[in-house]
Amino acid sequence: MHLIIDGYGSDPSILQDEGAIYEFLDQYPAQIKVTKIAPPLVFRYIGSKPEDWGISGFALIAESHISIHTFVERSFANIDIFSCKDFDADQVAKDLQEKFKLTRVKTYLIDRSWESFSPTREPVRFFTK
Amino acid sequence: MHLIIDGYGSDPSILQDEGAIYEFLDQYPAQIKVTKIAPPLVFRYIGSKPEDWGISGFALIAESHISIHTFVERSFANIDIFSCKDFDADQVAKDLQEKFKLTRVKTYLIDRSWESFSPTREPVRFFTK
Repeated sequence: MHLIIDGYGSDPSILQDEGAIYEFLDQYPAQIKVTKIAPPLVFRYIGSKPEDWGISGFALIAESHISIHTFVERSFANIDIFSCKDFDADQVAKDLQEKFKLTRVKTYLIDRSWESFSPTREPVRFFTK
Repeated sequence: MHLIIDGYGSDPSILQDEGAIYEFLDQYPAQIKVTKIAPPLVFRYIGSKPEDWGISGFALIAESHISIHTFVERSFANIDIFSCKDFDADQVAKDLQEKFKLTRVKTYLIDRSWESFSPTREPVRFFTK
């Protein structure tokens, strides 16, 4: 399953803390019992507009990944927890909200396994909740 | 926007070709005019079950990422194109289907920008199409 969490945080300092983001990516996979297969990567990104900067982090886990992109000046983050192994999505969403001090969030949970796959024929279109 | 494409392919050889996947991750960002900010990473993954092996690839692009996970024995792939800069999702979906010879696909397109964010209060739940 693939859990997406986007949201605004109350503490921009945590969204710019490369060390904390690295540590999260390094340690959280074990907490939800998924297997990390490479050390995390964390980059500081500076966009074309000075206010669009932040941290991007990525951890490859067995068959899938965890990623984080933050926008420090916006106090905004996009987080993905994608694992072929099921996890407790409600608990993970709660953990992420607490860890990154997200006060307003939007979540999506998508089943992406080959077992439950069914094709669609319509054109690509936006998902809205 | 974040375009997700999951699907079955007709040619497992392309799903196990680390070189082709690296080349795709290296070159495709420029084709859709998004900026790659680190060289791609490509790993061969062998799961706990012998049949669950494949390639995982990842390219960090400005503020977001492109990722691919393949399951060679299943002839199945999970692909994400996530960019803060808009792209032509229909064209990208078409490109990916052609490139990876995907014959049955399921797509999702999600707006994840801070500009259009609206919070949800309900618990995490599955999105179905």
